[in-house]
Amino acid sequence: MAVNIPMTSRPRIVIVGAGFAGLELAKGLKHLNSQVVLIDKNNHHTFQPLLYQVATAGLEPESIAYPIREIFRYQKNFIFRMAEVLAVTPEKNCVVTSIGEIPYDYLVISTGAKTNFFGMKDVEANALCMKTVPEAVELRNIILENFEKAVLTTSLEERSRLMTFVIVGGGPTGVELAGALGELKKVVLPHDHSELDFKMMQIHLVDMEDRLLKAMSPEASHSAEKFLSDHDVNVWLKTKVKFFDGQKVVFFDDKAIPTSNMIWTAGVTGEVLPGFSPAALASGRIKTDAFNRVCGHENIFAIGDVAAVITEKIPQGYPMLAPVAMQQARLLCQNLKKVFDRKTDLKPFVYQDLGVMATVGRHEAVADLFFGKFQGMLAWLMWAGLHLITLVGFRNRIVALVNWTWSYFRYDRGLRLIIRPSKRNKA
Amino acid sequence: MAVNIPMTSRPRIVIVGAGFAGLELAKGLKHLNSQVVLIDKNNHHTFQPLLYQVATAGLEPESIAYPIREIFRYQKNFIFRMAEVLAVTPEKNCVVTSIGEIPYDYLVISTGAKTNFFGMKDVEANALCMKTVPEAVELRNIILENFEKAVLTTSLEERSRLMTFVIVGGGPTGVELAGALGELKKVVLPHDHSELDFKMMQIHLVDMEDRLLKAMSPEASHSAEKFLSDHDVNVWLKTKVKFFDGQKVVFFDDKAIPTSNMIWTAGVTGEVLPGFSPAALASGRIKTDAFNRVCGHENIFAIGDVAAVITEKIPQGYPMLAPVAMQQARLLCQNLKKVFDRKTDLKPFVYQDLGVMATVGRHEAVADLFFGKFQGMLAWLMWAGLHLITLVGFRNRIVALVNWTWSYFRYDRGLRLIIRPSKRNKA
Repeated sequence: MAVNIPMTSRPRIVIVGAGFAGLELAKGLKHLNSQVVLIDKNNHHTFQPLLYQVATAGLEPESIAYPIREIFRYQKNFIFRMAEVLAVTPEKNCVVTSIGEIPYDYLVISTGAKTNFFGMKDVEANALCMKTVPEAVELRNIILENFEKAVLTTSLEERSRLMTFVIVGGGPTGVELAGALGELKKVVLPHDHSELDFKMMQIHLVDMEDRLLKAMSPEASHSAEKFLSDHDVNVWLKTKVKFFDGQKVVFFDDKAIPTSNMIWTAGVTGEVLPGFSPAALASGRIKTDAFNRVCGHENIFAIGDVAAVITEKIPQGYPMLAPVAMQQARLLCQNLKKVFDRKTDLKPFVYQDLGVMATVGRHEAVADLFFGKFQGMLAWLMWAGLHLITLVGFRNRIVALVNWTWSYFRYDRGLRLIIRPSKRNKA
Repeated sequence: MAVNIPMTSRPRIVIVGAGFAGLELAKGLKHLNSQVVLIDKNNHHTFQPLLYQVATAGLEPESIAYPIREIFRYQKNFIFRMAEVLAVTPEKNCVVTSIGEIPYDYLVISTGAKTNFFGMKDVEANALCMKTVPEAVELRNIILENFEKAVLTTSLEERSRLMTFVIVGGGPTGVELAGALGELKKVVLPHDHSELDFKMMQIHLVDMEDRLLKAMSPEASHSAEKFLSDHDVNVWLKTKVKFFDGQKVVFFDDKAIPTSNMIWTAGVTGEVLPGFSPAALASGRIKTDAFNRVCGHENIFAIGDVAAVITEKIPQGYPMLAPVAMQQARLLCQNLKKVFDRKTDLKPFVYQDLGVMATVGRHEAVADLFFGKFQGMLAWLMWAGLHLITLVGFRNRIVALVNWTWSYFRYDRGLRLIIRPSKRNKA
């Protein structure tokens, strides 16, 4: 069954996924003589870099989500369909979705990345994740609920397990989450729970590498480790998880930490759609040429985290970062215009690396930028400014600013709310 | 099994429910030589008068919820336990909860009200409600999702059913919700869905009385009806629902409206806990004397919506309103102090009626106040001011103000987000 989409004589470009890449591309195609169909399973874009703030009661989920239809309300060649894409059938030029089939002339896959458990079934079954808004909200619920449970138990062992958090993965997500939990421990939660001894709240950050933030400079890693230990976070390097049964994490050196909370930020992999031959894939991502064209498919492109742009110089593809995604989207936009104009001088993708940053605590961040390396307060101001500017929507920026100012001066997180779904009002 | 609560030599006052009444009482007992144990199934207070704004994408749920522990962080005699209270066993001076038994010296029941379906099983099974934060969020999800479904269907009948909203109950909740939906129809949703003809979006407000807002003055009712019809809301008076099967609402005059959305705001009843003899109850509420003491129980009190303070002058009890609840809480606070001081000159409750107000649209409200009756813009400014002031927490007030200013000047509702629970991260 075909999805009800107005028919036009113009070629149809179908974009799957409204992350940084998909959104940027769809906006850029505004004046192209085409029909742009954007498909996403949510009706909103998610600003993923701030998910950890939702999980730690610093921002409401509404501040980091933005209605897709709002962004495109004045774009005439744009159509949105809320649906889950199940597969691609390139031989029919068609995507199969939860609401039916959608034929395309050109297809762009910008489905992003999903959590990678590296085949560890016990971790997949028991660990907490933070890749989507509902996951971040539920993580917030669980963190707060643990302390409600901790005051109830008289078993110190049980209480310690509830108050212990093990974060696996020392990339930016793991570091930012650990720092935010450290802040909750230091300045927020002890006021809520005078019945508990907060020395029992233990935060562990575990990574198999020999330093945190391996993608950044050694200076950045060093500062992050220092800031985190100031925040009472225990950092375990060269440490690899063996299993997690929901009660304790066991490492390969047979050390174990009893906890009911293991948060898995140790890896991501491309959200690849079924329908491509194995030759089109490379280590969990879709292999493309330098023009983001999927290998073996003239009219299918992939951009963002899901795309591995493999060239001689970059045999592994670029890292999964928002700036890479947005630069690929902007270039593909130009290249698609050339394709439409029957020009053949497409421009190959080269990543302009402006730098990376990660925040650690109240006013501490690390930043490796193209013009210098920064740690501490200055890096934090840059981080906060950049995130406020890039947050989609003016209303969201104001509300985020209110929340951050509040947290900063009040040493408080205003959103310590456990909100669970309704048993009534089912869809 | 008894719940783990620190033992003291001071008498324990257990308060069940952190609505307006329970919160006000617990705060007022700050200096009483007692242990105050507040129990609520949520870790937050809900500002119920603005639930309809959450349901219509005007405010984020976090703006109308406030962490209970935050309110009491400096109150030394205060203990909070998140639990559902299942029953009262007055003969053992004990409440039975989802986390165990909690003994009390004095018990105050402030459990509020719940939706009343008047025994109509089909309505209970199929109608949407708006009494809790999760219900309001799910109502928002369903409203927005309906329009996503409406663009997909080619059946005009199906599309019309998805775009038709029947609100049953012409009290303040029904009127405010109808007005907010009217605003969505007029200024917000048509920009999102240029594929849909918004003449098909029908909003019906149904009441069995001969005028809306029966508890207010005829002037208020008249103005509300006029404002609503300006907002394209169809008002059906003297109309009673016979049944609703999820596809159409049928009325007693056999008129029917095909719709998948019936929102039930037609009645509430006390959230009475099991354990009281039928003699202690009166039409779904707990019967108390003029001192809010539950009939037949020396050390049990009831305040707020759940309490029917029955005296000769007020044989039905007072209406279920926030000001009644808060005044009862303040008086009970004084009376409990007298009980503790072994004084017997308790003061009987008399409601100081300062007035009632209800908002209808963008800058239209109706207000019957003790110093005069107001309709339109002025009433709306009073309404907005009062609600901003009474909203718990400074952060919540600022965020609500940002959202309202945004909506007002942009003719927009920024929170049109469908956010469903996570399938991962289960508690």
